[in-house]
Amino acid sequence: MANKQSRVLQRFKKIPKRKTSNYVPGTVRYKGKKEKAESVIDIIDYSKSDIKIYKPESLESAFQHKGTETVSWINIDGLSNTETIEKLGGHFGLHPLIQEDIVDTAQRPKMDEYDEYLFIVFKMLYYNDNAEMVYEHVSMVVGQDYVLTFQEADGDVFDSLRDRITNDKGRVRNSGSDYLMFAILDAVVDNYFTVIETLSDKIEFIEDQLFELNSEGVDLSKDILHLKKEVLKIRKAVSPLREVINRLEKTDIDLIDPKTHNYIRDLYDHIIQISENIDLYREMTWGLMDMHMTNISNRMNEIMKVLTIMASIFIPLTFLAGIYGMNFEYIPELKFKYGYFVLLGIMFVVLVIMIWYFRRKHWIK
Amino acid sequence: MANKQSRVLQRFKKIPKRKTSNYVPGTVRYKGKKEKAESVIDIIDYSKSDIKIYKPESLESAFQHKGTETVSWINIDGLSNTETIEKLGGHFGLHPLIQEDIVDTAQRPKMDEYDEYLFIVFKMLYYNDNAEMVYEHVSMVVGQDYVLTFQEADGDVFDSLRDRITNDKGRVRNSGSDYLMFAILDAVVDNYFTVIETLSDKIEFIEDQLFELNSEGVDLSKDILHLKKEVLKIRKAVSPLREVINRLEKTDIDLIDPKTHNYIRDLYDHIIQISENIDLYREMTWGLMDMHMTNISNRMNEIMKVLTIMASIFIPLTFLAGIYGMNFEYIPELKFKYGYFVLLGIMFVVLVIMIWYFRRKHWIK
Amino acid sequence: MANKQSRVLQRFKKIPKRKTSNYVPGTVRYKGKKEKAESVIDIIDYSKSDIKIYKPESLESAFQHKGTETVSWINIDGLSNTETIEKLGGHFGLHPLIQEDIVDTAQRPKMDEYDEYLFIVFKMLYYNDNAEMVYEHVSMVVGQDYVLTFQEADGDVFDSLRDRITNDKGRVRNSGSDYLMFAILDAVVDNYFTVIETLSDKIEFIEDQLFELNSEGVDLSKDILHLKKEVLKIRKAVSPLREVINRLEKTDIDLIDPKTHNYIRDLYDHIIQISENIDLYREMTWGLMDMHMTNISNRMNEIMKVLTIMASIFIPLTFLAGIYGMNFEYIPELKFKYGYFVLLGIMFVVLVIMIWYFRRKHWIK
Amino acid sequence: MANKQSRVLQRFKKIPKRKTSNYVPGTVRYKGKKEKAESVIDIIDYSKSDIKIYKPESLESAFQHKGTETVSWINIDGLSNTETIEKLGGHFGLHPLIQEDIVDTAQRPKMDEYDEYLFIVFKMLYYNDNAEMVYEHVSMVVGQDYVLTFQEADGDVFDSLRDRITNDKGRVRNSGSDYLMFAILDAVVDNYFTVIETLSDKIEFIEDQLFELNSEGVDLSKDILHLKKEVLKIRKAVSPLREVINRLEKTDIDLIDPKTHNYIRDLYDHIIQISENIDLYREMTWGLMDMHMTNISNRMNEIMKVLTIMASIFIPLTFLAGIYGMNFEYIPELKFKYGYFVLLGIMFVVLVIMIWYFRRKHWIK
Amino acid sequence: MANKQSRVLQRFKKIPKRKTSNYVPGTVRYKGKKEKAESVIDIIDYSKSDIKIYKPESLESAFQHKGTETVSWINIDGLSNTETIEKLGGHFGLHPLIQEDIVDTAQRPKMDEYDEYLFIVFKMLYYNDNAEMVYEHVSMVVGQDYVLTFQEADGDVFDSLRDRITNDKGRVRNSGSDYLMFAILDAVVDNYFTVIETLSDKIEFIEDQLFELNSEGVDLSKDILHLKKEVLKIRKAVSPLREVINRLEKTDIDLIDPKTHNYIRDLYDHIIQISENIDLYREMTWGLMDMHMTNISNRMNEIMKVLTIMASIFIPLTFLAGIYGMNFEYIPELKFKYGYFVLLGIMFVVLVIMIWYFRRKHWIK
Repeated sequence: MANKQSRVLQRFKKIPKRKTSNYVPGTVRYKGKKEKAESVIDIIDYSKSDIKIYKPESLESAFQHKGTETVSWINIDGLSNTETIEKLGGHFGLHPLIQEDIVDTAQRPKMDEYDEYLFIVFKMLYYNDNAEMVYEHVSMVVGQDYVLTFQEADGDVFDSLRDRITNDKGRVRNSGSDYLMFAILDAVVDNYFTVIETLSDKIEFIEDQLFELNSEGVDLSKDILHLKKEVLKIRKAVSPLREVINRLEKTDIDLIDPKTHNYIRDLYDHIIQISENIDLYREMTWGLMDMHMTNISNRMNEIMKVLTIMASIFIPLTFLAGIYGMNFEYIPELKFKYGYFVLLGIMFVVLVIMIWYFRRKHWIK
Repeated sequence: MANKQSRVLQRFKKIPKRKTSNYVPGTVRYKGKKEKAESVIDIIDYSKSDIKIYKPESLESAFQHKGTETVSWINIDGLSNTETIEKLGGHFGLHPLIQEDIVDTAQRPKMDEYDEYLFIVFKMLYYNDNAEMVYEHVSMVVGQDYVLTFQEADGDVFDSLRDRITNDKGRVRNSGSDYLMFAILDAVVDNYFTVIETLSDKIEFIEDQLFELNSEGVDLSKDILHLKKEVLKIRKAVSPLREVINRLEKTDIDLIDPKTHNYIRDLYDHIIQISENIDLYREMTWGLMDMHMTNISNRMNEIMKVLTIMASIFIPLTFLAGIYGMNFEYIPELKFKYGYFVLLGIMFVVLVIMIWYFRRKHWIK
Repeated sequence: MANKQSRVLQRFKKIPKRKTSNYVPGTVRYKGKKEKAESVIDIIDYSKSDIKIYKPESLESAFQHKGTETVSWINIDGLSNTETIEKLGGHFGLHPLIQEDIVDTAQRPKMDEYDEYLFIVFKMLYYNDNAEMVYEHVSMVVGQDYVLTFQEADGDVFDSLRDRITNDKGRVRNSGSDYLMFAILDAVVDNYFTVIETLSDKIEFIEDQLFELNSEGVDLSKDILHLKKEVLKIRKAVSPLREVINRLEKTDIDLIDPKTHNYIRDLYDHIIQISENIDLYREMTWGLMDMHMTNISNRMNEIMKVLTIMASIFIPLTFLAGIYGMNFEYIPELKFKYGYFVLLGIMFVVLVIMIWYFRRKHWIK
Repeated sequence: MANKQSRVLQRFKKIPKRKTSNYVPGTVRYKGKKEKAESVIDIIDYSKSDIKIYKPESLESAFQHKGTETVSWINIDGLSNTETIEKLGGHFGLHPLIQEDIVDTAQRPKMDEYDEYLFIVFKMLYYNDNAEMVYEHVSMVVGQDYVLTFQEADGDVFDSLRDRITNDKGRVRNSGSDYLMFAILDAVVDNYFTVIETLSDKIEFIEDQLFELNSEGVDLSKDILHLKKEVLKIRKAVSPLREVINRLEKTDIDLIDPKTHNYIRDLYDHIIQISENIDLYREMTWGLMDMHMTNISNRMNEIMKVLTIMASIFIPLTFLAGIYGMNFEYIPELKFKYGYFVLLGIMFVVLVIMIWYFRRKHWIK
Repeated sequence: MANKQSRVLQRFKKIPKRKTSNYVPGTVRYKGKKEKAESVIDIIDYSKSDIKIYKPESLESAFQHKGTETVSWINIDGLSNTETIEKLGGHFGLHPLIQEDIVDTAQRPKMDEYDEYLFIVFKMLYYNDNAEMVYEHVSMVVGQDYVLTFQEADGDVFDSLRDRITNDKGRVRNSGSDYLMFAILDAVVDNYFTVIETLSDKIEFIEDQLFELNSEGVDLSKDILHLKKEVLKIRKAVSPLREVINRLEKTDIDLIDPKTHNYIRDLYDHIIQISENIDLYREMTWGLMDMHMTNISNRMNEIMKVLTIMASIFIPLTFLAGIYGMNFEYIPELKFKYGYFVLLGIMFVVLVIMIWYFRRKHWIK
């Protein structure tokens, strides 16, 4: 097979040196591209009556939040400084494999149940201001009285949730860490709706452009390919999370209060809905490609029609003119006084017949 | 990937501001487009012997129908006035998540079992007078002695059912709220048949047009895309309802009388039938696209044939004429008395050979 | 989306008035197209030793066959006279939903188990004398000592079975109603083989025609679409019946003798075989469409080659002739005695080079 | 729909007369095409110490091999003489349905468990000397001390197995009829590997030809269609046998010694491997069709380029020549002494510009 | 069907002689292509405190590692010398079928559980220095105190693992043979990531080339086909291994310490991730083919536009010139003093109109 590799692929030579050469399972090694010198820590510590929001000066001051009566949400932004993760992981008793997954930005969404905590990985999706999709790896550890979230970079979709905790709106303040976990996942899933709505708008936009730009001959295949990839990327984030939430609904772990199950079931409804929509949009983008192909062929028909009409009309006429451009000594028609005008008349008749023929064929409207 | 985004997609900038910013799970917020200032309430309250049909003046007068001997069907048209929903929900003890789903028009069909009632979401589909498909979100709460239905707008498919209740036809008056629930779902599913029959008619229509309009060169791809989307939309309504009815058939909740199960099984048969038909029509619309593509290519062949025949006949003849239009001093043929007529004869022979050749190739019929 | 509906679909306005307006579940209403004033009843009543074949004068005389020692096969042809169905149904204690399904020709194949009988719906397929597929709705009720079959129209695939009963061939006469049920289903499934063989012959026929008619430019897409639809239609009949027979094999209802199970298992083998063949033929018809598309493109290549060869040869030659048709006062070549013949020679050389070039490119064989 | 049937399909009139008219379930009726006047019987009777290989003169002498201490492999070649099958079946107590399946060459691979024997149907595939695939129906009955195999025609894939039995190689002689059954199935499955290797070679061959013959314009679609059909045919043989072997592995019937289960599990591995390869080859043949289509389009591009280049160069030049072929009384350029040569120069410049333009567009290399 | 086989396939005659003729199940026969005269044996024997790494001089010295306190990893490079395998297999009590699978390079990944050991087959994939994919068959036998690995050729992906054992990094030295098994599988799976990253880079590369080379008319279909095959090949290695690891996670065999299960679960996550990525890349390569097809059609449109524009402009102009090249005695325009210039002016106007027309159609930018 190797010998079939063509000239073009042979130009491809940038083989990455085996990156994994010294890899040890359980090693904490950041694989993403969003380097950040320092991890930033935010802590929201609340009970029904009190709330404390602050950025701890040292990592160690975050350690006190384990084993308290209050619920603590410790959020870490920035994964490239793996030392912080390891220290925190050490204190909260996180298994080395979990620490590895937290910084492994390629890790797909999943849930692992441990004795003392739940570990959930998911992807946060949003469109930035340039309508480009941002794909961010987030991990969450849910313990009895704390929730740890690890994000790759600044900026997230939790502002509304923070607002609700601060101002004591909704059920959050009255509930435990399990409801906080639900609220975080809910914010993420809710944002997926925004993402697929934007995607849907983009598809509609390209569809409109297909019909509009068709006449201009703009090639939209790059855009359609772009949409396809975006759909595939979103599906890659959503479809494993769907399984996670399904398992979360069915698990009977002590951490999760039975009352919270209703909310998780609702969340599961939402993610199924999203994942059905994605399948729909996927099918639609494929339909766009078909449409585009049809458009190109239609355009070719248009071009061929013009050529055929022009050539079919003028080539025979030119032939007629050629006949009487010959230099034979004896061409009787040439001597007729009105021969020229008769011929022009004949040519006009041929022209009219041709046009009638093409109209009947609906090639000329 | 971002840098691959083409010129066209870059024009797309209408990023919706995050609508979900202040969203709290369990919030009752109408997301549909069918605004209606006031919700209209209709009540049908019936027992085997009596029936009362009226529009209550105040919402509160609807509250008395809970906990009675009679069966009450309370129908609310209009979801944009969420206050009504919340009040009613409060009285009938509806979980906040249910209230949220009632007004969330994007909610997919589903069933939730609660201790005191069943909650079912489905979509009502019908073609309006312009042959456009109407897609309406309907929710239903089925309690021991009442059925609440929530519709987005006026107009529904239940007129025949109301008539049967009023005139005591069929089993409705003799049965409880569970049979009313069945009858409502049955009316909806029965209407799906009408919808897919219309769809089937449309597909047949476009198929006929494909063959008819082919010669006229009308581009039907827009119509086929339209049909595809309609099929996908119907499937989106039907396929989760199928699961709902399946679960309804299997549930052993007290609310549903065993006798009603036979009817629900029948209903399940119907919806499977619909969903198989949809798959069929889906495959057929894809087939239409193939047909259309084939048609375009055939048309191009037609066009090319005309061009090739015209060019192949007249270009050589023009060349012959060109030969004797040359001004060489010594071209012996030019001096022959009947040279001109001999050449005309030769041209005629060439023409005949060409036509014979194209007939043999079946390019001329 | 509505505004995207194109000019063509807007012509489609034949919206059927809601047919289902006054529909009550359990209503016996014929939906098919094969109207028949009177239902014709045939009765075959047999035991191991005796047999009685007759057409009863009145419907009531058929009633006596319930609760006897003999096995009775009561066959009704014609479903449009729903009164007959209702009377018979009343006597044999058929549930209203069954009566509805008997006359509902759109009902998909299914099996319902009731306490005293089995109810089976299936489709009878055969090709009529014009090689058109006939699709007929048949229902069967199997009781302890009787089998009722309801057909839409005259003509069926049971003649051989009737012959076997009459002449005491095979196991039928020695067995009960369960074996009769098997024998009826077996005759139907056996006929499916004939149908798919004909279908397979048709596919082979079109495939041959594809290669044969290719040169003639006959458009076979209509035929391929027709085949596709036929495959889909057969699949629609077969695939739910497969489930029915699977359930029939597994059911442990008293009605069915354990010895009959071996036969039903064999029947199940047959229908799986048919349904695998259908999938095969489905894939093959798709392949035909591909072939057809390839053919069209090949034909276009043929056409373009002719055009390109003719134009590429004669356009340059015409140009050469045009050069020496110019009226410049001083064109030295024109004065050469044999200029004309030299030019003819050059033209011939150009012609030969062109032909050599096209032969090397394999455009001329 | 019937009225849509086109002109071509209407020519199709060879409706087979219902072949199944007098069919009784359990009838032994040969349906294949490999007629053979006499069935040939081969018997290999062996124990650990002794072996007897012979062709019995009469069928009856084969009867003695039931109920002995030795293992007997009775092989019957030729199924068209159904009487032999019936006699043998009678002696060995084979159910009428089994006898029917033995001669029904359309029967798909399957396994039926009976009290005293196992019945297995499979397909033997091999390429004959003309590289055409042979598809042969084989049935096997495995009893406590005998194995019956029924083949359609002479020639099989068991020579190596016979050799091993004769020369006491491998485990066969030391084991019972269950291991013989395994060895027979193993020989069949092992030969599937040879078949799919040949298929794979054919695919590679066509793929190479695609690139090679592309320039010659040979149409390979017929060959690709042929390959597709072959893949489908092999899959039809393999995929039900896979189920059979899976069930064989899991069955806990007494007939099969636990030690043999290891071997059957290994066999199951092999057939899964084959069936995965088939899926792979299926996808590859579809890829070939795509390649072929791309090739055709590329060729058309080639043709169009030649036409466009020739026409674009010579049509404008001919126009220039035409200008100076006009007979206006006053065309000053015609009087210039070197007008002719100047024009030739201009024409040359136009030619060079054209060629430069087409080179920049990469149409000329 | 045979008669349909076309001219091209008939050239295909290289039918392999039945290779399997003398095959006995359980025979140790090397089927790969990487012949190697001598098998090379490497032994790493370690406990928590000690480690011994050496190449034994004779095979027999490897035998002592069974039944010791230390963990021994015996690695054999080279499978063509089947005698070594058989001797080793004899000593370690490997079932003949296992010995057969070790040297059968076509064997798909699988796991067999035996009483005293686990047998696992998998494929090692890596890109060599020419960016060609290497596909190597590896088998592993995991006993209580030893791990045997059998590789086809020199070179593997275990260097990092060996390094970790030697330098006592990670958990390996503190754990038993089960963790060593995990570590080996982990190294293999980890390398799959490198492989699919390279694949992904290749896809991106071809995608970029598609847009870049489009104008040059380079045919990339060979490269896309190559990518498709590579994706299929990787999937063939990964997807059965996924099942193996899934079963490994769930098995409760004594050999595997419960602590190791966490690691295997993590490994399972990784392989699911890989297999989802492969599906993604598969869909992307199909998208590339679509893109390529669209590109070809676009290019044809480009070509046709040039032809149409040139022909549509110059053919009518040539006709005009032809008119006044006629030799009629009486053509009044020819006598007009400025007739020639007037005509040139008319031609210029025609040219301008044409160009305006084509610009409006966006055929000229």
